[in-house]
Amino acid sequence: MKATKRKIINDPVYGFITINHPLIFAILAHPYYQRLRRIHQMALAQLVYPGAVHSRLLHSLGAYHLMCNAVAELRDKGVEISEEESVAVKAAILLHDIGHGPYSHALEQVLVQGVHHEQLSLQIMQEMNAHMNGDLDLAIQIFTNQYSKPFLHQLISGQLDMDRMDYLSRDSFFSGVTEGVIGYDRILKMLVVHNDELMVEEKGIYSVEKFLVARRQMYWQVYLHKTVLAAEKMLVKILERVREIYQLNDEGLKTQSALDFFLGEFKTEMNLDALEKFCSLDDHDVMHAVKVWSKHPDKILALLCNRLLNRQLYRSRIQAEEFDSQYLKEKEEEAIRQFHIDPADVRYLCFTGEASNTLYQTKDERINILFKDGLIKDISLIDNALIQQKLSAPVKKFYICLLT
Amino acid sequence: MKATKRKIINDPVYGFITINHPLIFAILAHPYYQRLRRIHQMALAQLVYPGAVHSRLLHSLGAYHLMCNAVAELRDKGVEISEEESVAVKAAILLHDIGHGPYSHALEQVLVQGVHHEQLSLQIMQEMNAHMNGDLDLAIQIFTNQYSKPFLHQLISGQLDMDRMDYLSRDSFFSGVTEGVIGYDRILKMLVVHNDELMVEEKGIYSVEKFLVARRQMYWQVYLHKTVLAAEKMLVKILERVREIYQLNDEGLKTQSALDFFLGEFKTEMNLDALEKFCSLDDHDVMHAVKVWSKHPDKILALLCNRLLNRQLYRSRIQAEEFDSQYLKEKEEEAIRQFHIDPADVRYLCFTGEASNTLYQTKDERINILFKDGLIKDISLIDNALIQQKLSAPVKKFYICLLT
Amino acid sequence: MKATKRKIINDPVYGFITINHPLIFAILAHPYYQRLRRIHQMALAQLVYPGAVHSRLLHSLGAYHLMCNAVAELRDKGVEISEEESVAVKAAILLHDIGHGPYSHALEQVLVQGVHHEQLSLQIMQEMNAHMNGDLDLAIQIFTNQYSKPFLHQLISGQLDMDRMDYLSRDSFFSGVTEGVIGYDRILKMLVVHNDELMVEEKGIYSVEKFLVARRQMYWQVYLHKTVLAAEKMLVKILERVREIYQLNDEGLKTQSALDFFLGEFKTEMNLDALEKFCSLDDHDVMHAVKVWSKHPDKILALLCNRLLNRQLYRSRIQAEEFDSQYLKEKEEEAIRQFHIDPADVRYLCFTGEASNTLYQTKDERINILFKDGLIKDISLIDNALIQQKLSAPVKKFYICLLT
Amino acid sequence: MKATKRKIINDPVYGFITINHPLIFAILAHPYYQRLRRIHQMALAQLVYPGAVHSRLLHSLGAYHLMCNAVAELRDKGVEISEEESVAVKAAILLHDIGHGPYSHALEQVLVQGVHHEQLSLQIMQEMNAHMNGDLDLAIQIFTNQYSKPFLHQLISGQLDMDRMDYLSRDSFFSGVTEGVIGYDRILKMLVVHNDELMVEEKGIYSVEKFLVARRQMYWQVYLHKTVLAAEKMLVKILERVREIYQLNDEGLKTQSALDFFLGEFKTEMNLDALEKFCSLDDHDVMHAVKVWSKHPDKILALLCNRLLNRQLYRSRIQAEEFDSQYLKEKEEEAIRQFHIDPADVRYLCFTGEASNTLYQTKDERINILFKDGLIKDISLIDNALIQQKLSAPVKKFYICLLT
Repeated sequence: MKATKRKIINDPVYGFITINHPLIFAILAHPYYQRLRRIHQMALAQLVYPGAVHSRLLHSLGAYHLMCNAVAELRDKGVEISEEESVAVKAAILLHDIGHGPYSHALEQVLVQGVHHEQLSLQIMQEMNAHMNGDLDLAIQIFTNQYSKPFLHQLISGQLDMDRMDYLSRDSFFSGVTEGVIGYDRILKMLVVHNDELMVEEKGIYSVEKFLVARRQMYWQVYLHKTVLAAEKMLVKILERVREIYQLNDEGLKTQSALDFFLGEFKTEMNLDALEKFCSLDDHDVMHAVKVWSKHPDKILALLCNRLLNRQLYRSRIQAEEFDSQYLKEKEEEAIRQFHIDPADVRYLCFTGEASNTLYQTKDERINILFKDGLIKDISLIDNALIQQKLSAPVKKFYICLLT
Repeated sequence: MKATKRKIINDPVYGFITINHPLIFAILAHPYYQRLRRIHQMALAQLVYPGAVHSRLLHSLGAYHLMCNAVAELRDKGVEISEEESVAVKAAILLHDIGHGPYSHALEQVLVQGVHHEQLSLQIMQEMNAHMNGDLDLAIQIFTNQYSKPFLHQLISGQLDMDRMDYLSRDSFFSGVTEGVIGYDRILKMLVVHNDELMVEEKGIYSVEKFLVARRQMYWQVYLHKTVLAAEKMLVKILERVREIYQLNDEGLKTQSALDFFLGEFKTEMNLDALEKFCSLDDHDVMHAVKVWSKHPDKILALLCNRLLNRQLYRSRIQAEEFDSQYLKEKEEEAIRQFHIDPADVRYLCFTGEASNTLYQTKDERINILFKDGLIKDISLIDNALIQQKLSAPVKKFYICLLT
Repeated sequence: MKATKRKIINDPVYGFITINHPLIFAILAHPYYQRLRRIHQMALAQLVYPGAVHSRLLHSLGAYHLMCNAVAELRDKGVEISEEESVAVKAAILLHDIGHGPYSHALEQVLVQGVHHEQLSLQIMQEMNAHMNGDLDLAIQIFTNQYSKPFLHQLISGQLDMDRMDYLSRDSFFSGVTEGVIGYDRILKMLVVHNDELMVEEKGIYSVEKFLVARRQMYWQVYLHKTVLAAEKMLVKILERVREIYQLNDEGLKTQSALDFFLGEFKTEMNLDALEKFCSLDDHDVMHAVKVWSKHPDKILALLCNRLLNRQLYRSRIQAEEFDSQYLKEKEEEAIRQFHIDPADVRYLCFTGEASNTLYQTKDERINILFKDGLIKDISLIDNALIQQKLSAPVKKFYICLLT
Repeated sequence: MKATKRKIINDPVYGFITINHPLIFAILAHPYYQRLRRIHQMALAQLVYPGAVHSRLLHSLGAYHLMCNAVAELRDKGVEISEEESVAVKAAILLHDIGHGPYSHALEQVLVQGVHHEQLSLQIMQEMNAHMNGDLDLAIQIFTNQYSKPFLHQLISGQLDMDRMDYLSRDSFFSGVTEGVIGYDRILKMLVVHNDELMVEEKGIYSVEKFLVARRQMYWQVYLHKTVLAAEKMLVKILERVREIYQLNDEGLKTQSALDFFLGEFKTEMNLDALEKFCSLDDHDVMHAVKVWSKHPDKILALLCNRLLNRQLYRSRIQAEEFDSQYLKEKEEEAIRQFHIDPADVRYLCFTGEASNTLYQTKDERINILFKDGLIKDISLIDNALIQQKLSAPVKKFYICLLT
């Protein structure tokens, strides 16, 4: 009996996560991966759900754990997955979020404009691969859907991928919003592969419905909760304000981190140097910056920073109809009067916008149900299913945020 | 029907926490209280237990929730607790940890030497009280055990207080270490008041035993886990190194936060100005500082900071016997050779120390069991109880940390 | 300090259930109530979900516990509920199922034809009340909706009553079908009373949606699961067969219990004597009878009984369309051939039927949402709600059962 | 891709249990195994813990599930377990309790005197094996510890076997007594095999301690709870009374089940005919008999039966010292007076006895800890361990039961 190196990690959601392959150990030990410890999975949702402070590192470990289970389950059903493919698909899920920056989705389009986090993930994976003698080759092929077994890619990115499965389970666990609990273990048991595509067994229909409903609930109750939205918009407005008043010699805006670079000279080209700088950023830099800026002479900047630190957020509302422009105008005028600001700056204190969520997107990716008789049907086309064509249209809502 | 303002907060551990009194709302809204959001309850334990990232704010909210339950339970048993006392004891538990600094216990004796966090809590409560027209008077009396009903103080600070009840439940929940789960709800149901002292009903003996065993397990498995200890010692060593090389004009040590003050000019007197600075500190300042210092020219400082950021911690061991001085000497020499450092600095890379834990302290505070026939007995004196005199002696262990 | 008699009961679903009023103690101690220990809440669902063996007694205790919470919650919101009303509504929910016979719903229409269990519950409550000096007067008024505060009745019987809230939570807990988990605690927190009617706060919409979806899932996944249905139909067929071949002098059909009376001389009048006999029946009588009948000379009876005992159930199928009569005929012929039975008896071995479930019934009872601005809307009329008019139509399905 | 027959069973404790081997399917389908559905795992503990109604069938399925995990874990650590051994050890654990009679431990020594349930399990396994072409040969070898790899037997029967692991987890789950929760998944992860013996890794010490403490707590809080004990003694006394007054022609004692045989003509020889009769018995027979006997003319028998049915149990007490004989005498006289019974029969209404539990038995089976350096130590010999020599002595307590 000869034991390979093994490690178990305690996870409050799944119990234990087992690490037992050198490549997985190497990824975990990498500074780029360790950085994910310092990025909150749910950004500022913690201002409403104080338990929701888990890290992206734990989310990606969780997704890796589900992938281990999915691979074991599919193999037990006779699907052929080689040892090499197994390790590669696990490495890929572990790295699927490696490109996330501080406060993830909240800041994505503000910090590094025009670059999507999935593109960054790929760039970083390639960079890591270059230093790992190509050990990530197959993982990258699967990640970019260029491998011959599409179901492996679908386990990473698809309607029922391990990413979604974990973030719904984990976010509802840590936020304490039980409405988001999905039966991830049951769905895993129901996965099948047919013509190299991932599908769900007939008797998994109700579990999939539950999953889609839970996702919808998490969107409206948590991710797009009006106060979460208000907090995240406040952080966005802070960065926008910094951008607007940025001057190279303003020492009061400098924060001793790569933020200085991204808010200043960075344009849009993510070259190797920029990428390395990006990989040094985490939530601490942003929150430290907010603390520094809370003492900056710019009135609006200091105001927003102090408000965020002390959780005195925008008052916000979400509704089905667009806000009346007259109403908005009144509110803007109130804000201008109350805070004695330049009317040209009112967009920092009062603004509207749109939020949207789709229960089930039929276009790109589909959830196919494999019936016992071999028939394949998209879940939205099944009789009496809860998820019908009509419901799969995106739901658009409108929000207003105002400082009072 | 007229509703007072009420708010419910989702908590993954207890479900919902209800806030329904203006004083409690006022405390929650205070910037000093909001600061606790940015302090990790379990410091660097997250480097071993990645789920253990919950904040002190959530811990104190949880302790408040248990206090609400305890008050309701005791009243239901006929214990007289007035509305004013009820609010005061809840305010006091909410504020019991308000004096914690960044990375709590880990840095307590390094950052603000000679000042205990409970003393700071009291100072801050008094400061808040001064601005709240004395609304916290009774809470402070209870907190300092100067109120006529000692059991109220015991609910805040004693062998079975709501603080311990919550931190054991919560820390084991978030770390995923089920060995620490206690039956907090059962213990609450078993609390009684006799001669104004808090006691436990006879049939609660097993629950109390379980609580004491769980606490012991959390100490050795989590709080004093060898790798958690290694991480926290690394942070301590970093601050010690900064202190040692500190010079006012070294811009590379400056971090744009009150850390600069506490590592520099602060002596030991916690005057109002220092207190205010203290109340601006949180974990972000420390971790940002570590990131800044990781590029400092001091080799040892930069080394330790980079190691901490990338989770390349000291190799550590814990054992029952003291470490042999010869062995330590060898290890020190290895470290000097490997890292080419001045032998005078070896204490940053290689050192030993003691850790201790007591299952049950019989001296100060006791857990009294109230028998049906009116007899009162300390739990350690009960026949066949698991927690016996012998076991209540402190357990001392020895550790070694070394960089490799 | 003077303590009333109090008792706490461990419940795996809610933790602890507290009993603290003499009337509640009296109900619990009553033999009619104790009988509910011997009746399975989920009848034969245990043949598919082996954990689902909890009793009606525990369900009614659970519903009582939720009622305690609901009353406390509503009072905390300013709803006036007197001590007397509080005890009465708790007594009423505790007794709401007292009229259930063995194997509950499964046998309801077979054992005591033409008498609904709610009518029996009322009769038994009246009978108990007669021996309790009218202590149940108010409980009975509330139960029969003749009391001046309709919301109290709605807590017992309505779209969001404590009965449904408990059975969904409990049945999904014991069966291990997490799809049925509802956020009962959140719904309780969202209940309000307006114009003496029970409503739900605006921000409870998602929780109510989740509740309705969970109920739908429990129907199709558990209550109407094809194998559960097959098992329960088998038990029904056994009793029908006994009825058919019943003769007073057939000692082989006698079972030494009140079953003998209900399968023999009982017609439809539930007089006091019959009621008392009914209250002596429980699941043990039925299962013992099945064991006795498994050795009866009647071939069909013995066959069905043995099959049930050994879990060799009908093969069954559920589908959206009615079964083809030609197909049914073929199957009948197969059964006749295989088991060598009289064609006139084939309905015991092969038969079809309908099962139906409604997601949300808009007719009788409604779930009203109370908006912050005072507006009241039925949940099915809310924009973008998941539960829409269209979905609230009943879903009818067809099943076939056949012995093979 | 070719799928073997697979089935998943919902279990509230572990989520899903997977069945995927023909031999396991065959065992599950066997009438002797299905009988275990009708035997309560915790006998009459349900009269105190109303949730504790789970069946022996579910317990053995759960132990099987843990065995699947243990085998996978050990294999992952390099322990060689062939496919044949794997199936055999799973079959053996599934059948380890097949010899339990109605109300298990409660009635074991009353119904079939002088025959231990493990011996019966073996006899029944051999009987089943005879009809299964020897498919159980290896399972029986392992069960009887005659196989060359003792650790396989230890997984079925030893200090840390899957039987104990499941019953502690399951019994605490269903009873709602969280004090009994063990970290079964962590213990499984810590199992190792050394010299073909089952051991525990060094870092599993605390989990094992927790397990032993939890077991102790379950004994005193649940299995030997004074009211559980009172209920089970009442059932024992009922059967003893029947035995005493038994006459072949007393129709009022006949119950139409194999009970008639075991209470009447059965002596001690468990021949094939008796074995078959035994395998027809379940809890329904006993409870039906109690209902029949509650109307028997024998006053004591009817009294005890009615009391049990209506949960009017003996008043009981458990204490560390033996009961005073004078005190017992007084109580006996009270009972004789109150119930007007023949003094010779007082032992049915008033009696004392002993109950004992051992935290850790050092004699027969040991829990060996395997240290990293290869050292092996019994857990009771480890420094500072909670479980010490002294504590491993059996704890004996005394009880009294009396009808009032």
